[in-house]
Amino acid sequence: MAPRLASLDVYDVRFPTSRFLDGSDAVNVDPDYSAAYVILATDDGSWPVGHGLTFTTGRGTEIVVAAVEALRPVVLGRSTEEVFGDIGAFWRDLVDDSQLRWIGPQKGAIHLATAAVVNAVWDLWAKREGKPLWKLLMDLPSEEIVRAIDFRYLTDALTPDRALEYLRVLESTRSQREAEIIRDGYPAYTTSVGWLGYSDDKIRRLSAEALAAGWTRFKMKVGGTLADDIRRAGIVREAIGPANLLMMDANQRWDVETAISWMEPLARFDPYWIEEPTSPDDILGHAAIAGAVHPIRVATGEHVQNRVMFKQFLAAGGMDVCQVDACRLGGVNEVLAVLLLARRFGIPVCPHAGGVGLCELVQHISIFDYIAVSGDLTGRMIEYVDHLHEHFVDPVVVMDGRYRAPMAPGYSAEMKPDSLRRHTFATGEVWRDAAVATPVGG
Amino acid sequence: MAPRLASLDVYDVRFPTSRFLDGSDAVNVDPDYSAAYVILATDDGSWPVGHGLTFTTGRGTEIVVAAVEALRPVVLGRSTEEVFGDIGAFWRDLVDDSQLRWIGPQKGAIHLATAAVVNAVWDLWAKREGKPLWKLLMDLPSEEIVRAIDFRYLTDALTPDRALEYLRVLESTRSQREAEIIRDGYPAYTTSVGWLGYSDDKIRRLSAEALAAGWTRFKMKVGGTLADDIRRAGIVREAIGPANLLMMDANQRWDVETAISWMEPLARFDPYWIEEPTSPDDILGHAAIAGAVHPIRVATGEHVQNRVMFKQFLAAGGMDVCQVDACRLGGVNEVLAVLLLARRFGIPVCPHAGGVGLCELVQHISIFDYIAVSGDLTGRMIEYVDHLHEHFVDPVVVMDGRYRAPMAPGYSAEMKPDSLRRHTFATGEVWRDAAVATPVGG
Repeated sequence: MAPRLASLDVYDVRFPTSRFLDGSDAVNVDPDYSAAYVILATDDGSWPVGHGLTFTTGRGTEIVVAAVEALRPVVLGRSTEEVFGDIGAFWRDLVDDSQLRWIGPQKGAIHLATAAVVNAVWDLWAKREGKPLWKLLMDLPSEEIVRAIDFRYLTDALTPDRALEYLRVLESTRSQREAEIIRDGYPAYTTSVGWLGYSDDKIRRLSAEALAAGWTRFKMKVGGTLADDIRRAGIVREAIGPANLLMMDANQRWDVETAISWMEPLARFDPYWIEEPTSPDDILGHAAIAGAVHPIRVATGEHVQNRVMFKQFLAAGGMDVCQVDACRLGGVNEVLAVLLLARRFGIPVCPHAGGVGLCELVQHISIFDYIAVSGDLTGRMIEYVDHLHEHFVDPVVVMDGRYRAPMAPGYSAEMKPDSLRRHTFATGEVWRDAAVATPVGG
Repeated sequence: MAPRLASLDVYDVRFPTSRFLDGSDAVNVDPDYSAAYVILATDDGSWPVGHGLTFTTGRGTEIVVAAVEALRPVVLGRSTEEVFGDIGAFWRDLVDDSQLRWIGPQKGAIHLATAAVVNAVWDLWAKREGKPLWKLLMDLPSEEIVRAIDFRYLTDALTPDRALEYLRVLESTRSQREAEIIRDGYPAYTTSVGWLGYSDDKIRRLSAEALAAGWTRFKMKVGGTLADDIRRAGIVREAIGPANLLMMDANQRWDVETAISWMEPLARFDPYWIEEPTSPDDILGHAAIAGAVHPIRVATGEHVQNRVMFKQFLAAGGMDVCQVDACRLGGVNEVLAVLLLARRFGIPVCPHAGGVGLCELVQHISIFDYIAVSGDLTGRMIEYVDHLHEHFVDPVVVMDGRYRAPMAPGYSAEMKPDSLRRHTFATGEVWRDAAVATPVGG
């Protein structure tokens, strides 16, 4: 008898990042990087334990925790054999609860909760197989990858047969790309130089330091005042030189017409992309902006709620760069759907990362994407932010602007027990001992 | 000194409707009609108390309740003068909490919670003014209506100036339409005849009874098997005759291509619209279906998460009938935005209702729409379902297939104290006394 899923514990974990304005941008002015964090155990003590998380920014994490609790009855008691044998069916059961679906469906708090649970299940599976997640995925038969995906609402753009063709054509050369990634790592870019709350001097200093550390791709925040954006863009461009890549991120700050007019004066700093120029729900707005700012690319995805939205962004020409998020979507299964949709439309995937744990997760996604789906590194890179990695058992390793392939079993989401305990909200010592609770609107 | 908002209580209220398959459709197979229900009081005992709700379907209501609790600090302590003086600013503060927004933004559990809070505030205001909500709205200066709306992400389709023009042009004739509605009521259609869980005999009987009661517009559920849909459509069309309107509702059951092919054999029953043919997130999919099934209209809206999505549905031709929901959107303010967007694109608004309390709410919306925004009843009607009205202090009155204008002060959302107490989950006697708790997947 295969073990059964026997316990699902969920934690509200928050890091008081707002105290230093790390991660500040035009919309997220004071995030406390946080997670609804799941520990999933079987009834067999000899088995590993699965860890999964979904990223949040402080207040509201307790709502996602409540949503995870609501999913618990769908999970517990299931045989691991059944779950790993048809993980697509398991995913559909999670998102199809006939009453819970009303508060989504497949969006918002309930979908973030789905991500935490699904990511924990995949972590458990990969650990049991003794493989990092990307390796578990590449060793699965292509049919199993396709079966993990929910194709409902996708078939007008991508059928299971077509997805299988994409995977099949790269099967024979997978091991070459695996060896290459293990040897060379995966390209990355840094977002650590230009947070909106940083002073000009700090931006200048961080840009120079990052350049010296081997970075060649840099992202800055825009969307304050236009004068500020122009001045700050000048500082970064001057520091990194004309040959390196400079990306800009507006974090949804603009209306469609504002985005178009604002990018005119910013174009002289040669931005590689403009990220989240407007509402993450405005597919046609993104398409209008993409048409107007070409050849500057439009990048988005971190707030795109599910595969149906990605389908339209890609089909409408509103997404030149696909910034899939490992936790906004309903975990690994739905990320696989988006990788194949991006393949269908010939759009590179450059995952959103940062926050807490997102870098650890998305490295697996990009490595699998290269080995099994895209077969191409052109225009592809993973976001990197140098915060909070010290809290993870198997943190990311970035050298010379590239992610080193993670080799430990699992999905790299496991936090150190001490970090988990200290940052549990509001009883952990980080929150209990200091008057640091961030007030609403603070 | 104007009173301040001093207490916000929230209740998890559930009605065990799944026991009778009332409200069952292709996707919502066993809803327990529920609400996160808000009671908002000031610090002045001589003032009325505001009641507001957001509709849910059972499990998950506790998540929305947690989301309402997270909004409480944004509400309490505010002066009523400040809130009523600039209710648009109040709305933006609610949706803009810099940390909570991550778990939306403006979608899912946190946005449903916003609706409950915002609806309670408008109820309080209308009661204080001694007017039904529709009358409060029509008596506000047009500038105030415009100022209540958040135009962020809308301006490429609708500017404040243009919205003001739409309102101004109807100002001089408002009182005529007000008199007309008070005299004649507002057209309605009934959804009570064709729930998917009902037998053929029950459908036949209910259709005949509704016809005898004066109904001329009927909606049935589709999306089971095609053979079932054809047989059931035949039963309803035969019962209501060729001249009356028959609407069909697929509740998101189909992919784009399935919807198009399925509607071919159903077209011979002359459906007036097909509702929610596919995912509520698939704007371009709806547009493709609308193009293919014309002249059958495509109706959607009850799951459309915010004004940005409505903007695109309308602009893309994916919404021939706008089924705005009073609770899925962030309450009255955002509903006003959608009424004006629909006006901009010349699309009739036929609000989604049913559930619990939705009929009570949307009658105010449609009456205001007619008096101040559309000025036209062509192709406009309010959904009606005959469940659970007995729990409200001021229930809807429908006669001869028309809603009578509500005349009591407020937004008609107030439940009887005894109903509230008996149905509170899981301590109220309806849940406590019987083994009726619906299991997951049940």
